[in-house]
Amino acid sequence: MRRTITGFSNPTVKYLRSLREKKHRKREGKFLAEGLRLLTDARECGRLPEMLVMAESRDPHPLLEELEEAVESAGGEIVETSPDILSKITGKDNAQSVVGMFAEFDTSLGGLDRSSAQIWLVAQALRDPGNLGTMLRTGDAVGAGGLILVDDCADPFSVEAVRASMGAVFTQAIAQASWDEFLPWLRGGEGQLVAASLREAVPYRGAPYQAPCFLLVGNESRGLPEDYEMACDLRVTMPMKGRADSLNAAVAGAVLAYEVLDSLGS
Amino acid sequence: MRRTITGFSNPTVKYLRSLREKKHRKREGKFLAEGLRLLTDARECGRLPEMLVMAESRDPHPLLEELEEAVESAGGEIVETSPDILSKITGKDNAQSVVGMFAEFDTSLGGLDRSSAQIWLVAQALRDPGNLGTMLRTGDAVGAGGLILVDDCADPFSVEAVRASMGAVFTQAIAQASWDEFLPWLRGGEGQLVAASLREAVPYRGAPYQAPCFLLVGNESRGLPEDYEMACDLRVTMPMKGRADSLNAAVAGAVLAYEVLDSLGS
Repeated sequence: MRRTITGFSNPTVKYLRSLREKKHRKREGKFLAEGLRLLTDARECGRLPEMLVMAESRDPHPLLEELEEAVESAGGEIVETSPDILSKITGKDNAQSVVGMFAEFDTSLGGLDRSSAQIWLVAQALRDPGNLGTMLRTGDAVGAGGLILVDDCADPFSVEAVRASMGAVFTQAIAQASWDEFLPWLRGGEGQLVAASLREAVPYRGAPYQAPCFLLVGNESRGLPEDYEMACDLRVTMPMKGRADSLNAAVAGAVLAYEVLDSLGS
Repeated sequence: MRRTITGFSNPTVKYLRSLREKKHRKREGKFLAEGLRLLTDARECGRLPEMLVMAESRDPHPLLEELEEAVESAGGEIVETSPDILSKITGKDNAQSVVGMFAEFDTSLGGLDRSSAQIWLVAQALRDPGNLGTMLRTGDAVGAGGLILVDDCADPFSVEAVRASMGAVFTQAIAQASWDEFLPWLRGGEGQLVAASLREAVPYRGAPYQAPCFLLVGNESRGLPEDYEMACDLRVTMPMKGRADSLNAAVAGAVLAYEVLDSLGS
């Protein structure tokens, strides 16, 4: 189905715009992703938007035409509108000329196949959507299986997280769970839980990492609760040569993940 | 000098608030930093605010009292005001209960002593103030000498960059220069210029790093211009196991910096 929207007060515009808010995303089970590159990544990972919204003034592009065809074949909707309305939907000046509305994925722990990857990233109470998206992007780069969000994390389907993930929101598995759900799940199978820590920790270089290795990163301000750290199989410490005693959460996860990638020889 | 401000339209409130905008910061040569922890870090690094603004409702704290005394002894100004006015100044709900106004530092290349550290971070056209602040924080952690901002980067004195640096804006040297200024400066002394690259690159693990090592990271969207990469002494590549061909700029810089830290044995 294809149609053109010209009015700011059109109900579809209002609906799409509402998806910038978490409560509406949760209620509707939908989220937005912007830009041809992201949408192409999504398509190549088997994820098609249910609705594709394009600026009338867009430049023609073969990948966009392929995407349109794929969305139409799958019974999705194609909407053409003005750049101003598109900006209103995404809340961003100079919006990308194409936006997709996707159904949210299953984010239960049960959906994860832990044997499918040697590295898994785990974030606890990670509040910044940019950090969350960056961790997804890092996970993609190190060949991680996915990102497990423990306790009250930012929403992986927020526009900011999707943007910062640079498409990895479509390539990485994502799960959401409380600590009390996560730990029994982890202990129900293979898996080494590793945290960056100052407590009874060994140097992160050359530490005895084992696959599947679950790298646990804590909240931006408070770090990990002590009992979470002590529940880990391995605590590692990174050099801190300056005044600070911690790194940005996404940075700490990445430095660790690259070390584990090297250690496991993958 | 100590005074109380009660009105939103007070000229000092307007002045401080204007420092959230780059053009006003540049004109006045001042910037803001929030929070007792940041201000204490600054003091311990020999940087005192010219003006200290505190919420009347603040909790007493010995470090804050020490800071007040230090600012007064140095001839600075102490302002007490309401939490609402403080929020208006910083543009943040739930503002920290103390904000300092500092004079901007010298950011010329001539101010850097390259022999003072083994690692230096260099960012080219880095646009995101959060990434910039995160690089300063990483620099502090790896014992870098400072961050050199090449071409049109975000402002290191923006509230967002200062916040993301977690105080490292006071501990790391910061320089700003065009590429045409930076490269001759670099070549005027010791220094190995290293970039993450896909062009004629060697694996980043075990690459022949030499101190002082200048790690060059490119713009978030476009990466480094090819001629900048080719001007480097060493190009290194990091494993990319997934669909993406790059990492977040601050993450790439951190993974490299920790590798160099290990390699140089410092």
